[in-house]
Amino acid sequence: MVKQERAARTREALIRAAAEVFDREGFSTASLTTISSLAGVSNGALHFHFPSKAALANAVEEAAFARLRVLTGDVPPAGASRVRLLVDVTHALAGALRTDPVLRAGFALSGEPSRLGPGDLREGWRCWVEETLKRAEAEGELRPEAEAADVVTAVVAATVGFEVLGVRDGAWLSAATVTRFWRLLLPTLVPAERLAGFVAVGTHSP
Amino acid sequence: MVKQERAARTREALIRAAAEVFDREGFSTASLTTISSLAGVSNGALHFHFPSKAALANAVEEAAFARLRVLTGDVPPAGASRVRLLVDVTHALAGALRTDPVLRAGFALSGEPSRLGPGDLREGWRCWVEETLKRAEAEGELRPEAEAADVVTAVVAATVGFEVLGVRDGAWLSAATVTRFWRLLLPTLVPAERLAGFVAVGTHSP
Repeated sequence: MVKQERAARTREALIRAAAEVFDREGFSTASLTTISSLAGVSNGALHFHFPSKAALANAVEEAAFARLRVLTGDVPPAGASRVRLLVDVTHALAGALRTDPVLRAGFALSGEPSRLGPGDLREGWRCWVEETLKRAEAEGELRPEAEAADVVTAVVAATVGFEVLGVRDGAWLSAATVTRFWRLLLPTLVPAERLAGFVAVGTHSP
Repeated sequence: MVKQERAARTREALIRAAAEVFDREGFSTASLTTISSLAGVSNGALHFHFPSKAALANAVEEAAFARLRVLTGDVPPAGASRVRLLVDVTHALAGALRTDPVLRAGFALSGEPSRLGPGDLREGWRCWVEETLKRAEAEGELRPEAEAADVVTAVVAATVGFEVLGVRDGAWLSAATVTRFWRLLLPTLVPAERLAGFVAVGTHSP
């Protein structure tokens, strides 16, 4: 049992170290030796847990997916606004991308040309945004002029833009940036008479 | 003179080949041998023109910048709409990113962790969007409720999102996607009485 716990901790440490090195140097350039020494384990221990860099990248992506599911997992109480949930989750996502190298590396792996594949974090995020906006539309939250598909396009593209631009300039992931986006978009999404109930800064933000 | 022309052609072929290989395999993974053989020149000729992969990447970035300047270079006649110019140029940029590997590789180099620097194509694009929207605001084109800074944030983030998501799925760079974005955004930017003069599909699109 103690041994199993130690193995689980080593695995976690390797995933975290891999994410940090991928984040700093990029997936293709990252060396397994840098990763194992950052995790404080031997190269042998790394290979025991992960037979290849690709296996390690898959584990980072899975760990990042688990974090994304936590961020998007709140099921709002019946009757609560889906649009408000969307605003809050984009704020939470930007905040987590600022501070969590596993989530950041997981998203960046979605754009890695040498890992082309159909399922990835950006696609997972798109699906959640689409699902949330379809429900908002079905529950009559959106203005009749706002088509859910148009909103999905704008929200997914802009948040992926924040993620990518945030690598060089963290201000793109700040609450101020996300607030500017929603301040512009909310009036087109939500009927004017209900707009007062929405805050572009998000409900959980300071 | 003939010799100079041949050298210029070789240099062009190397930049084009480098862009294609960076685009397909990523900057860090790309090998100089793959690039020289795609360009149909010897490794020696490559090194004569470009002493390192970094020098080649800089040349790709410069060539991409030149293309971006062509796309954004139209000075509209006095009195013409800056917002219309912005819509048209985002359509042209998405189209060019779909078809031109040099432009695509140039933008992707902006996000390369091993090449962190202050000036890059995404930043150049942000500056142009900001300049264009500030003029639109100064010339009274925007609705009083629309703040130019908010629009810059949304337009730059969304277009960078299209560029990045377009790597795995070209539909993100289609005219339909760009049109969906503007269909949503234009009513918040432009006063209702002038909206009829704008087309989300762009002026040059079919």
